[in-house]
Amino acid sequence: MANQSYPVSETSLVPVGSHCILELYDCPTDLLNNLVFIRDSLQEAAKRAKSTLLKEITHQFHPYGVTALALLAESHISIHTWPETGYIAVDIFTCGQHTEPEAACKFLLQAFQARNHVLLNFPRGKLTPQLQKLEESFLVQASI
Amino acid sequence: MANQSYPVSETSLVPVGSHCILELYDCPTDLLNNLVFIRDSLQEAAKRAKSTLLKEITHQFHPYGVTALALLAESHISIHTWPETGYIAVDIFTCGQHTEPEAACKFLLQAFQARNHVLLNFPRGKLTPQLQKLEESFLVQASI
Repeated sequence: MANQSYPVSETSLVPVGSHCILELYDCPTDLLNNLVFIRDSLQEAAKRAKSTLLKEITHQFHPYGVTALALLAESHISIHTWPETGYIAVDIFTCGQHTEPEAACKFLLQAFQARNHVLLNFPRGKLTPQLQKLEESFLVQASI
Repeated sequence: MANQSYPVSETSLVPVGSHCILELYDCPTDLLNNLVFIRDSLQEAAKRAKSTLLKEITHQFHPYGVTALALLAESHISIHTWPETGYIAVDIFTCGQHTEPEAACKFLLQAFQARNHVLLNFPRGKLTPQLQKLEESFLVQASI
């Protein structure tokens, strides 16, 4: 890999995209152990985010719980389910001005029928090394 | 999937694990377009986190940039590189008391020779729907 040349920017602190951290609480437990439903939801979430799904992997845990990961042209989506508590941990990281990660979050909220949720949104590539205390501007609790 | 039974807990607001958001800035650009090095680093990061890597997917973007995702028994690791800016976006989400996601972050920081970084750590499954303003206790800027 020697002598490769890239157009290195003046600063590396360029925001590259939005990273949504989504907590889905109080979902119907049966949905959360249904690998086919979860994979279909992952694929639909990628569409709703206006992203391109390149590859995916899933895993059915025993006795229960599912993980589904999507590798996107614009970064990734993860879904991890805990049927025993009705909880799902989601993160959706998309780059590019054309993407709509919060639309994907809204879809998943509805698909999994979550009665409660929390959504945070980070501007990745913008968080600075000098950050000592988190400012509200770095994190947006979005309404979906 | 009807009539499945799960031991549903009294509350779904049970912390399930730590989600580290790691920004690596000012890395040597050649490392960031080396898919083999990045896949090896992903696998080593999973070990350093004391997690079990079940499946992985990678993608080489053109003209440059790599994504690597690891599906863990304990959740996931993602690595996305931008050789043109020397930036890497990492997230490491691990469940269980036995895991050490910050050790994996420290490894990646060193492996990619980042001159600057930011690490935030979320307790997933604990962020509450009532959260209106982020409190410092929810986010820890860790030293590694």
